[in-house]
Formats: sequence, structure tokens, C-alpha cells
Amino acid sequence: MPYIPLEDHLPGITGLLEYRKDSAEPIRALTQVLLRGPSSLTEGERELIATIVSSRNGCRFCTSAHTAAANELLGENNTSEKVKQDISAAPISEKMKALLTIAAQVQQSGKNVTEDSIKNAKEEGATDMEIHDTVLIAALFCLYNRYVDGLATVTPAKPEFYKGLGERLKQFGYNRLPGGYDHLKTNTIQ
Amino acid sequence: MPYIPLEDHLPGITGLLEYRKDSAEPIRALTQVLLRGPSSLTEGERELIATIVSSRNGCRFCTSAHTAAANELLGENNTSEKVKQDISAAPISEKMKALLTIAAQVQQSGKNVTEDSIKNAKEEGATDMEIHDTVLIAALFCLYNRYVDGLATVTPAKPEFYKGLGERLKQFGYNRLPGGYDHLKTNTIQ
Repeated sequence: MPYIPLEDHLPGITGLLEYRKDSAEPIRALTQVLLRGPSSLTEGERELIATIVSSRNGCRFCTSAHTAAANELLGENNTSEKVKQDISAAPISEKMKALLTIAAQVQQSGKNVTEDSIKNAKEEGATDMEIHDTVLIAALFCLYNRYVDGLATVTPAKPEFYKGLGERLKQFGYNRLPGGYDHLKTNTIQ
Repeated sequence: MPYIPLEDHLPGITGLLEYRKDSAEPIRALTQVLLRGPSSLTEGERELIATIVSSRNGCRFCTSAHTAAANELLGENNTSEKVKQDISAAPISEKMKALLTIAAQVQQSGKNVTEDSIKNAKEEGATDMEIHDTVLIAALFCLYNRYVDGLATVTPAKPEFYKGLGERLKQFGYNRLPGGYDHLKTNTIQ
């Protein structure tokens, strides 16, 4: 039961973004530019950063949502699971391993990012902008995870819910749907 | 020495917001609406939320900057120091003590916010929107602190620097200055 009154048909972050729309707008815009804007990292790679941070923050809603988005974008379910288990053993590039290691350090504290992990990322070919974006995406999900769990929002149990959300995040990104979310009132998958 | 190339005359968050302006714009907009937009919490009270979170994250730049902003808005330097030392003994309302306690829980993890702390805030008169904003402001500063420290930005040592920044944050808020920040190149206070 959320700590503030949120719409029943909008679990997790979705109800919060409808609760206060003037703060939701820049949150959506920031996420859209970082996760869907022009970048030398693929959209799937950027969803893996969101996934590892949400997973390590123990935010079940965000972990399930961004795992689903990553799976949709990558076209398979294996990589996201491996990344959550052990970055070093995941089937991703050495550059992505280095960037996800930085993201995992940011999840704990900004001060936990080491010179060695930055050096390693640069040696594996990461650009300054990729390092910047990795840190900022990781920091953004530290915001999201705290927003979602700090107000005790509802976490749907059914995998179909996240599958549908992942498809929506692949197709529409993070902008608010033009018609809003009233059509989800008939959605019984939670 | 920052991990990515930032302008020498722009320490802490200020250089990051000039490094990538398309992500900076929604970060500034979100901060402006939450910390300076219409609210039943004063601007000074909202800066105290930013201060306690930054302080507990050990982010020296953000702690000094928002302490200075709070001091400018409150017209005295005592309250911010007391809040950082011990929320329960600070010269603030019982409602603000309850909200800052929630902010301190969010700093650790969204899941650390307890039903009791929410109940207490409501009993002390906090509205749903004040609770929402407290959680989101606290989460936002968990983003800022990680962004600033995760990229090893420069932390000026001189108190005069933060005094000037606090005055700017009181006068102009969080929008980008219309003329940019080139005029600070002549600023030797760091």
C-alpha cells in the first residue's frame, strides 16, 4: 500500500509520474535523452546500466521493468540475467564490463568510483562521454529506485506485466503517452 | 582532477552541467520545480533536505553549496549546522524533523523509509505532497551527489566560493544563467 494516494492501475514509477506531472516531465525528458537519445552505446547497453543499478539497489519494480526493456532491445533474455549475476562472466564486450563496473560503484556511492576502474574503461575504448553517461544513468536510477521504494509503490507479481512494460519502453521510450494511461484501467495483468 | 575534461573555472556540479547541456536542461528544470516552485514548504526548508542528504552522502561540494543556499534563504547559519549534527535537536518544526528523518532514510535506501516515519510526519501535519516532495528531493540529491563525486569533480576549499554560490542559488535558482558562466573565468575564489 503506497504511502500517498496513487492510481490503482498504475504501479511502481508509473503512478508517481502521474501524481505530480510537473516534476515528472523533466524526469521523463532526462531519461529519454540519456537512454534513447543519440549515443555510441546501444539502447540495450544503456538499459543494462539501469538494470544492474536497480538490481543492486534491490528495487524489484525497476529491476523487472528494465530487465524486460533490455531483453526486448537485445532480442534475448540471457545477457541481462548474466549481468545481474556476475558482470565479469556476462556475454558482453570488455568495454561494457568496465562501464557496468563503474555503474555498480556509483550505486554504492559516487566516491566509490576508482581511478583504476576509469583507467580500465578508457583502456577498453570507452569515451569520456560514455563514462559521463554511465555515471549519470547510474545516478539517475539511484533516484528512481529511491522514489519508487521510498513511497512504497506497488510491485506487480506477474511477469506478463513487465513484458508489456518492456515492449512499451522499447516502442515509445520514456515520453508520456500522448493519450495518457487511462486505457490501462482495463488491464488485469498485475 | 576530474575523470573527464571539464572547464577549470566550473567546479563541482557546475562543470558537469556545462559538459552535457541536453541532459543538464531537465536536471535543472527538475531541481527548479522541486526547490523553487510553488510549495507549502519554504525554499529554505527544501534546501535543508538537499543539505542533510548531501551531508550524509559525504558529498563535500553539494553539502557546502546547499548549506550556503539554506543559510542565505533562512538568514542565519545556525539551523543548517544543527540539522547536519542532529535532526531531533535542530531549531525547526516537528513536521520538518519528521520530513528530514524521511529524507535521511531515503539517503540510505528507498526501502529504509518506514511506515512509522510516514505516520509520524502525517501526525505532525505533513501533507501527502510534502511527503512526496521530500522523498523526491532526497532521491534527486542522491543523483547529484553521485554525479559530482562519481566523476571526481573539483571541490573548492574557500568558504567564499560557496557563499557566492549560495547567493546565486537564492537569487537565480537552478535555471542556467542567460549569459552562461564565462564571467566566472575571472573568479579566483576557489
